[in-house]
Amino acid sequence: MSQDFFAAHQATLNNALDAIAKRGFWTPYPEAPSGRIYGETAAADGEAAFKARLDKPFALNQPATKAMVGAEVSPFGFALGITYPSPDIDGLMAAAKAALPAWRRAGPQGRAGVCLEILHRLNRRSFEIAQAVQHTTGQAFIMAFQAGGPHAQDRGLEAVAYGYRAMTEVPPHAHWEKPQGKADPLRMDKDYHIVGQGVALMIGCSTFPTWNGYPGLFASLVTGNAVVVKPHPGAILPLAITVEIAREVLAEAGLPEDLVLLAADTAEAPLAKDLALRPEIKIIDFTGSSAFGTWLEQNARQARTYAEKAGVNFIVIDSVDDIKAVTRNLAFSLSLYSGQMCTTPQNIFVPRGGIKAGDAHLSFDEVAGAIAGAVAKFNADPERAVEVLGAVQSQATCDRLDQARSLGKVLLESRTLTHPAFPQARVRTPLMLTADAKDASAFTQELFGPISFVIAADSGEAALELATATAKQHGALTASVYSTDPAFLAKAEDLCIDAGVALSENLTGGVFVNQSAAFSDYHGSGANPAANASLCDSAFVAERFRVVQVRRHSA
Amino acid sequence: MSQDFFAAHQATLNNALDAIAKRGFWTPYPEAPSGRIYGETAAADGEAAFKARLDKPFALNQPATKAMVGAEVSPFGFALGITYPSPDIDGLMAAAKAALPAWRRAGPQGRAGVCLEILHRLNRRSFEIAQAVQHTTGQAFIMAFQAGGPHAQDRGLEAVAYGYRAMTEVPPHAHWEKPQGKADPLRMDKDYHIVGQGVALMIGCSTFPTWNGYPGLFASLVTGNAVVVKPHPGAILPLAITVEIAREVLAEAGLPEDLVLLAADTAEAPLAKDLALRPEIKIIDFTGSSAFGTWLEQNARQARTYAEKAGVNFIVIDSVDDIKAVTRNLAFSLSLYSGQMCTTPQNIFVPRGGIKAGDAHLSFDEVAGAIAGAVAKFNADPERAVEVLGAVQSQATCDRLDQARSLGKVLLESRTLTHPAFPQARVRTPLMLTADAKDASAFTQELFGPISFVIAADSGEAALELATATAKQHGALTASVYSTDPAFLAKAEDLCIDAGVALSENLTGGVFVNQSAAFSDYHGSGANPAANASLCDSAFVAERFRVVQVRRHSA
Repeated sequence: MSQDFFAAHQATLNNALDAIAKRGFWTPYPEAPSGRIYGETAAADGEAAFKARLDKPFALNQPATKAMVGAEVSPFGFALGITYPSPDIDGLMAAAKAALPAWRRAGPQGRAGVCLEILHRLNRRSFEIAQAVQHTTGQAFIMAFQAGGPHAQDRGLEAVAYGYRAMTEVPPHAHWEKPQGKADPLRMDKDYHIVGQGVALMIGCSTFPTWNGYPGLFASLVTGNAVVVKPHPGAILPLAITVEIAREVLAEAGLPEDLVLLAADTAEAPLAKDLALRPEIKIIDFTGSSAFGTWLEQNARQARTYAEKAGVNFIVIDSVDDIKAVTRNLAFSLSLYSGQMCTTPQNIFVPRGGIKAGDAHLSFDEVAGAIAGAVAKFNADPERAVEVLGAVQSQATCDRLDQARSLGKVLLESRTLTHPAFPQARVRTPLMLTADAKDASAFTQELFGPISFVIAADSGEAALELATATAKQHGALTASVYSTDPAFLAKAEDLCIDAGVALSENLTGGVFVNQSAAFSDYHGSGANPAANASLCDSAFVAERFRVVQVRRHSA
Repeated sequence: MSQDFFAAHQATLNNALDAIAKRGFWTPYPEAPSGRIYGETAAADGEAAFKARLDKPFALNQPATKAMVGAEVSPFGFALGITYPSPDIDGLMAAAKAALPAWRRAGPQGRAGVCLEILHRLNRRSFEIAQAVQHTTGQAFIMAFQAGGPHAQDRGLEAVAYGYRAMTEVPPHAHWEKPQGKADPLRMDKDYHIVGQGVALMIGCSTFPTWNGYPGLFASLVTGNAVVVKPHPGAILPLAITVEIAREVLAEAGLPEDLVLLAADTAEAPLAKDLALRPEIKIIDFTGSSAFGTWLEQNARQARTYAEKAGVNFIVIDSVDDIKAVTRNLAFSLSLYSGQMCTTPQNIFVPRGGIKAGDAHLSFDEVAGAIAGAVAKFNADPERAVEVLGAVQSQATCDRLDQARSLGKVLLESRTLTHPAFPQARVRTPLMLTADAKDASAFTQELFGPISFVIAADSGEAALELATATAKQHGALTASVYSTDPAFLAKAEDLCIDAGVALSENLTGGVFVNQSAAFSDYHGSGANPAANASLCDSAFVAERFRVVQVRRHSA
């Protein structure tokens, strides 16, 4: 049955394998929330399905449930009222371990078939998942659909492709024949068995539960591991639906459903540490705070942890052709999902003496003012603004925002907007501050949320050096540099490569530094403290399985 | 210049890439120590080169030397009298770091070319290296030539091939073109840069300095790292020659010689811990004791450690066709290099009630007696025996041997032999003990050296279960099972796969359980405590480098 799924999706897998070899544009999952693509009733069906989930227990027929828990509140202003199974950990581990032998025997094709079918069904359910993502993360609907649906599915498929390629690069059998001069050669037949590491733990985050969660989930699954999904207590629903679909596909394939298990918890009684320290857990995928990521690395020594943590992303403006094209691009980047993306820029460095802009010279204040003006204009109309800003996921981010204004001179005040459809939504426009390069302590920490600095640096080169040194010390996922000088760009490339931070140059069109496209952009390099792995490359999958050989004389 | 080396060896690399895809028999480095292959004077030249090294400083023109150290004594009975540079660690790290940018710019082809040229020159020097390996490890000459020369070079080349494949699976550039309905597509050009992790540390062992050392050395080098080679103080010379050749090739390629550096130390003032804890060190390759391997994993947290540690290898004899063919095979396995291979079997389980052997039944005592008799006969003639036994590398192994006889009932006494050519050589024949499965504490630890147990088990199945449970808890690199029953072999396969131990079935011909052939046998699985990595697979190389991307709008 899992082989049927493989046959059904083999063309998709082949295209994905081609895409990871070339890393150009490709996706099998359309990002447009369009009835023509997903079915005319898909939007309404998705919303109805979401509403039907509210105010009741989420029925997941899984073992070892100790209690039903859940306290999700939509950042748009209402309680979801859903409860989910919270496990007895001993029982959960026993169930996951018992499922492993059948999963190993399913083989790379059988496992890939199941993963591809799960992704296919997730895709068909993108409208429902979009509602779930919107009302847990606070993303505006279109973003919740795209980033939480098709783009997350892309990242999952990308992980399946890397895992499948890595496994199938190991031949299942070999014939070894060693010449012995005039005597008969020595002849051996060998089998190479792919074996998962055991049980994997995927710890979800509150802002991108599916986009950041699917790579680890699918990378572990396809390589032969069982996966316990431990969502952030504030964003359980998108992953609960994912687990439900995964279990449904596994059952149809005649495989143990317990290869994918949900472990819901609450902020008051978190389970992540207890789960992470279990000897059965051999792989951990985590997106979240540096403190907890480092705790996992230090303490869950029996497991390999793939962690995306905090970072301080930066922009350096050295010189531009057209300042309006630059500020338009930046206004979107700084506003998108209220700066709650791990790829959002925080520190914008501008030479103290100003910059060349086309034929003109702009002072530092003029550049700062132009950016702030563009951000203000972008968010001037609340009805339009909320469709980009979304809502702020956590009250802690609003508190951080309120406290941040003391860290510099206010360049642009954050405003509280009223969402036309959700009057209780937690909506804030970006806060912008100015600072001086010498006040590095103010801006060399991650200030998660819609908070950014325009920083006066001694020069463009000094800005590059400070920014990349900060990236090496505190981490960064993205860098963006504006310069009309090829030598400056070359220097930026060298320093960013050394700091392990992905660089975008002179973004002025419809591509934004916070966007990372599956199959093409490596999200995180693993080469600075912001992440110890990349989504997604061979290193992300290679150690999720082992090879065990059996050999004998040839008959 | 490094590109010239690439061109010169491209066919070899292509063959190696084909070999790792198929994992059949292949080698470019002939294992026969033959004048027709290596040149009629090669043997004499190698011996002369070795003798010319004795009793003087080893001239390595490398920076940051603090002292010259060295106290190697040949297990065949004479002091080498060679001293080697022992570093000022700050200076060594600075030199290695300074060499990195040029190495990154050399690119995958440039680095592969250099590695292939180093291996080619090592191959041409196999007779000299054989002398160096013999008189540090105690291996008999032929084994020192094969395992220390061509087979080690094979393992190095295998690592180069895996590293090269992993790097070149990342396209250097991509064009990304995203459709925008009727509008122009979004177009981006992207570069993907391969960046090594930094400085790697390769910690050599005393028994197989090149065979166990080359995989890590070449895997780190080809992927863009500098490598500090820290040999075991008892086996420096083979790796010093290796470093010398590597530096010579790098210089000829116009690259910094300091990409490969020697760090010699002494047993009294070891450097491994100080080196391992340096922040510059991002990768550690280690072969040796479980205690130190675990110390590295626990303490050198800034680095990824690839460790081969101790294990308890086993044989289960359930039933045989021809007991003589079995005992002949075992006699060689137990005698080869006096049991000082990490792959040598230690525990031989036999059902308490005896076994079926062809049409006959053999009691436990008859099976044990047949094995012991074959080992005794194999080593009866000292002149012939020493060519397989070699010498015992360390006095500690002789002490262990002397103490081990209290752990069971002596089945075959160890004898001290006089080497005809080296009367001072430390030569011991295997000690064999019998034990009962219930006395597991005696045999579930590694007793490195020519020490083995024939253990009475309740049944073949009980033996399998005890042996694989021991492997899961204490580690094992090899398992060997004899059975004429396909169901028993199937059970053995399942249990060995679960325990992560490589299984050989019914070895009776010219292949021995302790032999692991590059390009075909995975040495270690990484799936039990004997090793956390395999020599060599994709996982062994995938995390030695990172990918950093740069993107811009297409022109």
